[in-house]
Amino acid sequence: MTKLEVVFLGTSSATPTRNRSLPAIAIRREGQVILMDCGEGAQGSFVRFGLGLNKEMLILITHLHGDHVNGLLGLLQTMSMSQRVRSLTLIAPPELFGWLKATMEVFHIGLTFDIGLVPVRSGVVHRGKDFRVRAARANHSVDAWSFVFEELPRPGVFDPNKARSLGVPEGKKWSSLQRGRSVVVAGARIRPGQVLGPERQGRSIGYSGDTRPTKRLARFFSGVELLIFDSTFAARDAKKAVERKHSTSTEAARLAREAGAKRLVLTHFSARYKRTDGLLRESRKIFPDTVAARDGLILDVPAVQ
Amino acid sequence: MTKLEVVFLGTSSATPTRNRSLPAIAIRREGQVILMDCGEGAQGSFVRFGLGLNKEMLILITHLHGDHVNGLLGLLQTMSMSQRVRSLTLIAPPELFGWLKATMEVFHIGLTFDIGLVPVRSGVVHRGKDFRVRAARANHSVDAWSFVFEELPRPGVFDPNKARSLGVPEGKKWSSLQRGRSVVVAGARIRPGQVLGPERQGRSIGYSGDTRPTKRLARFFSGVELLIFDSTFAARDAKKAVERKHSTSTEAARLAREAGAKRLVLTHFSARYKRTDGLLRESRKIFPDTVAARDGLILDVPAVQ
Repeated sequence: MTKLEVVFLGTSSATPTRNRSLPAIAIRREGQVILMDCGEGAQGSFVRFGLGLNKEMLILITHLHGDHVNGLLGLLQTMSMSQRVRSLTLIAPPELFGWLKATMEVFHIGLTFDIGLVPVRSGVVHRGKDFRVRAARANHSVDAWSFVFEELPRPGVFDPNKARSLGVPEGKKWSSLQRGRSVVVAGARIRPGQVLGPERQGRSIGYSGDTRPTKRLARFFSGVELLIFDSTFAARDAKKAVERKHSTSTEAARLAREAGAKRLVLTHFSARYKRTDGLLRESRKIFPDTVAARDGLILDVPAVQ
Repeated sequence: MTKLEVVFLGTSSATPTRNRSLPAIAIRREGQVILMDCGEGAQGSFVRFGLGLNKEMLILITHLHGDHVNGLLGLLQTMSMSQRVRSLTLIAPPELFGWLKATMEVFHIGLTFDIGLVPVRSGVVHRGKDFRVRAARANHSVDAWSFVFEELPRPGVFDPNKARSLGVPEGKKWSSLQRGRSVVVAGARIRPGQVLGPERQGRSIGYSGDTRPTKRLARFFSGVELLIFDSTFAARDAKKAVERKHSTSTEAARLAREAGAKRLVLTHFSARYKRTDGLLRESRKIFPDTVAARDGLILDVPAVQ
């Protein structure tokens, strides 16, 4: 089973604090990094956590507020300095692309690699070999998006005894069945279902970006293993959450429950909260399996039970 | 005597290291901050070193390479978050101004204060109440500038005995003489020179930004108390310094000697040097009063002897 981890590089909201950097969260998978938002300082954390500047890479930007994007230029520049040649994919509100081009010119930045620019929209925004990324509209003060990373389902476990009893010879035909393809043995078609256990579901990770909780997002995040959700405010500051189009810890918990998420991670904490224990306690009352993110936290996403 | 300090926020060159952040250096004076370059992460160091987000402030940008400017947006935004109302002055190559305006729009940034935009040019670029800033062309791969911050000279020390012996009555006329203005006593003009000691010279700080050493800069930095100079490379990498339009520690030392600077600070170290002792030793052979900057170093600039 491929190791799947989430590395929290920055867990503050708009203003950084002594312990919390600006928003940036990385999904680390064998040879791949999917960076979600890229706040100022992301390149430093990238190197510190050994995420690697030359990996297969996707960058997802939820919305164009400076604190979620200010680290992008530095990261791209440092990748160039380390002679990255592999192209990467940037999925973002399309206004970012014109800005990026203009900025490269003004700041005399020449990259050593190509960037595939994908304007974010509802639905599947990226198809990898064995995973995909979907997007849905969030509800924030500007055009904003939420993302779900999901592994594609894999064929079930192969049973060699069943294959032998059906007369399938070891070798090529076993491989075909293992990969979910039918084979023909002595004129008879053997289907993968006859030799494989139940299909193995992939793991999924949802990230809200900055948003109010909405019905649409509860559906969008349905059944994710890990839901990373805006928890800018404590319940007592619910009015501010409404005004500024963010969520409280309690709202995040309710949405996680409604979505049937397995686990909830609170993040994007306002600088007004020195400690996040209070927000965590509020969330756990409603959704017990909650974690409060902190800079440097690494969460393993285990296989689906 | 007003306290005058230099706070080194970032001392790396283009790529940050574990210990060195991107270029940013602050001159701290009573109630004033003059920030020279604003690499990514400057806002964090700003808060960490208590530089204050609401002080009278000048920002000087030497040139438009991302690593010297990427922290600007975040800093301006965090100043707004802390409700800064006092306007600040930004002195930079003028291409920055159009970029800043466009970026504010794309990233939905509304500032709570005004920014006075001053295109950098040769000569005096700012006149404060008791200091000024001059600029001169540097020699880098793009349009680049060096700066000198200098306090204006102050009148000499007032001698009350001399004033009494000349019959000047204590009070308003003493104040006028102390501020360098002549007064008339019983029909006779008394000049400040008759009651004041020699004029007290102000302190000056030079900052090269990214540059090759040049004759022009040696003249421009003539006699500064503190010269902060590009020392990207060690002497053995002199060829790289020429190619990339930077300086070596040895070249910085020679220029400091030629300029008659009192003290030299090496900065902007390439990530290839884990430690800077070697560069410091090279410089001290030529210019003994050299210091190697490090992130967090605070240097006091004493009164001129």
